[in-house]
Amino acid sequence: ADVKTFATLKPTDKPSTKGIKNIPFLDLKLINRPYEKDINAALKNAVASGWFVLGEEVKKFEKTFAEYCGVKHCIGVANGLDALVLLLKASQFPPDSEVIVPSNTYIASILAITLAGFKPILVEPDIDTYLIDPAKIEEKITRNTKAILVVHLYGKCCDMEAVMRVAHRYDLKVFEDAAQSHGATYQGKKAGNLADGAGFSFYPTKNLGAMGDAGAITTNDDALAERLRAKRNYGSGKKYVFDYQGLNSRLDELQAAILNVKFLNLDSDNFIRQKIANRYLSEINNPNIILPPANTVNQDAWHLFVIRVENREKFRKYLTENGIGSDIHYPIAPHKQLAYREWNNRTFAIAEKIHEEVVSIPLNVTLTEKEITYIIEKINKY
Amino acid sequence: ADVKTFATLKPTDKPSTKGIKNIPFLDLKLINRPYEKDINAALKNAVASGWFVLGEEVKKFEKTFAEYCGVKHCIGVANGLDALVLLLKASQFPPDSEVIVPSNTYIASILAITLAGFKPILVEPDIDTYLIDPAKIEEKITRNTKAILVVHLYGKCCDMEAVMRVAHRYDLKVFEDAAQSHGATYQGKKAGNLADGAGFSFYPTKNLGAMGDAGAITTNDDALAERLRAKRNYGSGKKYVFDYQGLNSRLDELQAAILNVKFLNLDSDNFIRQKIANRYLSEINNPNIILPPANTVNQDAWHLFVIRVENREKFRKYLTENGIGSDIHYPIAPHKQLAYREWNNRTFAIAEKIHEEVVSIPLNVTLTEKEITYIIEKINKY
Ligand SMILES: Cc1ncc(COP(=O)(O)O)c(/C=N/[C@@H]2[C@@H](O)[C@@H](OP(=O)(O)OP(=O)(O)OC[C@H]3O[C@@H](n4cc(C)c(=O)[nH]c4=O)C[C@@H]3O)O[C@H](C)[C@H]2O)c1O
Ligand SMILES: Cc1ncc(COP(=O)(O)O)c(/C=N/[C@@H]2[C@@H](O)[C@@H](OP(=O)(O)OP(=O)(O)OC[C@H]3O[C@@H](n4cc(C)c(=O)[nH]c4=O)C[C@@H]3O)O[C@H](C)[C@H]2O)c1O
Repeated sequence: ADVKTFATLKPTDKPSTKGIKNIPFLDLKLINRPYEKDINAALKNAVASGWFVLGEEVKKFEKTFAEYCGVKHCIGVANGLDALVLLLKASQFPPDSEVIVPSNTYIASILAITLAGFKPILVEPDIDTYLIDPAKIEEKITRNTKAILVVHLYGKCCDMEAVMRVAHRYDLKVFEDAAQSHGATYQGKKAGNLADGAGFSFYPTKNLGAMGDAGAITTNDDALAERLRAKRNYGSGKKYVFDYQGLNSRLDELQAAILNVKFLNLDSDNFIRQKIANRYLSEINNPNIILPPANTVNQDAWHLFVIRVENREKFRKYLTENGIGSDIHYPIAPHKQLAYREWNNRTFAIAEKIHEEVVSIPLNVTLTEKEITYIIEKINKY
Repeated sequence: ADVKTFATLKPTDKPSTKGIKNIPFLDLKLINRPYEKDINAALKNAVASGWFVLGEEVKKFEKTFAEYCGVKHCIGVANGLDALVLLLKASQFPPDSEVIVPSNTYIASILAITLAGFKPILVEPDIDTYLIDPAKIEEKITRNTKAILVVHLYGKCCDMEAVMRVAHRYDLKVFEDAAQSHGATYQGKKAGNLADGAGFSFYPTKNLGAMGDAGAITTNDDALAERLRAKRNYGSGKKYVFDYQGLNSRLDELQAAILNVKFLNLDSDNFIRQKIANRYLSEINNPNIILPPANTVNQDAWHLFVIRVENREKFRKYLTENGIGSDIHYPIAPHKQLAYREWNNRTFAIAEKIHEEVVSIPLNVTLTEKEITYIIEKINKY
């Protein structure tokens, strides 16, 4: 619990702003610096333990993260994509099943459905929230539809009440892609505890990020959890006994040790993110820039702060010239990728518009007040 | 290069033999002890680098291991099972393809074929070598057969000349499951360089073992290597561009740092293994015990020293009573597992006999001469 946060860093440890005009979009070196001492100690311990597969650190993290999300089970897995693949595979849907998923998401949400052997059915998002539009789900339901995979994109929970209403009407399972929403809440419950099961990613850039690939599944379903524990381990629940055709997808013991250190700051980091987002929301004021919706009663994890702007390249060039890093999440819609060439001629107009216009501006715990002010000023002057 | 080997350990670092009668089958804590200092330093570096996905350590390991195997390409992946899955997926066989595989192997070899979407066709091994019997391959070839996945089980290379002869005749690809054969040679070439591509596992207990899951693919095929580099990375060769429906299966940067340290001793460790195996081969002399075949011109990696004995449980009890650890690789044949319930009624008599009779006795770099002598004496007195 004595992990230093950025608030407690000595001035010399503070980000060097090189006269402010050099704000990277994301600098993991800086983000991880306060943890380094504790992480090195944790790794040393794990190395000395002699047990490297599904050991004490994984067990501890699974317990911690289940409690954090308020669910009965957390199953550590190798990464966020595998978490979703395993969830879907373990759900035992028949081979031709269809799974509904938003048309705008990191492609992994869609890949998971394909890799699990099912058919992704794309549903357009709400242009204002970037989240799946519950009103458009029903028209895509067929007799083969078995589940809805919602994505809490950029850190904001979907409109779960509306999604669950459709799901109940058609007896569909609902899974959450919570890769970007560690700690987000919806009606007082945490992401990961809002449906039948959820997949998390701890990719290094996530709100809770490992130093490599890592992931987890959360669920309240005992039988599903038991199948998942076997299915992440070649299908084996007991040494040398294989009841399923499983994957090898275990949460790495060393990465779990790192997550156990970094977890201690997840809530305080999210709090800092929220404060930054609130400043952007109240102080960015430029008719050319469309801001994301503000927090209402639900808690946004603010994984990314995504604005929209026409002529994105011009805007990004302006940011770069002013020493402000930015990124795009994401530039090409999944249905326009060669990986899904069979969809390349289809139109998902809202997803396409989003993919053309979004820009992510810096939002992370290393930003100083001065840097945030500078970013706001520059954007307002655009 | 200054990593200590067991040969250079001070007496106080030596395994405590507790009056000899306490020889574990495998003690990774002890095995990794000489590396700990260097590994902790390597991890500290990797942590401080701020780059955790497909970074410098992975690049370095891929280069080192490609050179070691004598191949053009090494692609680091998450584990040994994924290595095989990716190899098969990247080979672009049509959906109903059949892949020939031995009926006695760690189940992952077979799972890989199923997970890649193909049909495993089991072929019985040679009872003396435990390796696929090339004479039995041809009768299993159909018009759907596209590849042979040989397994260099326990560290010994298969009879590749005979396998390649059949493969060429029927225009089949040949892949090596080299999970147990790091450094083994066949006709002067290393495992991993004997066919169209190979999958390696660096599971902690392997001859070259990480401290968690890790794997690699080796190949001389440029186009295949390029597809594999994308397919281990969600199908993306270029940021945000997805040409394939890939997996997330990257060699962990921290595990690569560990492998870069441990690799320096792979050859000397294999040399120690060979010396131990040679003592067992020449000194174990008991009509109840069937020994594995000796090295001839080819270099065995001696991942495991597997003997056969009738009434295995009685023998293992005897070993336990004498403080000698043992293990079974493996107790239940893949076709008898529930994971392949459709095969449960089929008979593979040789595989079944092997699975009933095999026992693995201690073979690892921590064994002292005294312990080896003791093990041999006890086995001879059985
Ligand atoms: C909704 C949803 N579902 C499933 C998934 C799948 O989860 P996964 O399998 O765990 O990846 C994702 C993953 N999502 C992410 C995706 O959002 C994107 O994330 P990103 O933050 O844009 O990632 P990036 O471009 O690698 O890094 C951003 C910046 O961060 C800096 N950096 C990065 C790294 C890796 C580093 O080591 N050091 C650095 O300094 C430099 C970079 O410019 O790309 C990743 C590969 C995915 O894991 C998702 O968003
Ligand atoms: C031919 C072939 N093809 C593909 C594969 C798939 O590769 P993979 O996906 O990388 O696993 C294999 C894997 N093969 C191995 C398989 O041979 C077997 O290996 P094993 O050495 O018997 O493994 P184990 O039972 O976990 O460990 C043996 C002893 O080692 C000690 N130990 C173990 C661990 C993990 C530890 O941290 N500390 C310890 O002290 C105690 C244990 O008693 O089971 C593993 C799960 C597979 O990865 C294979 O053999």
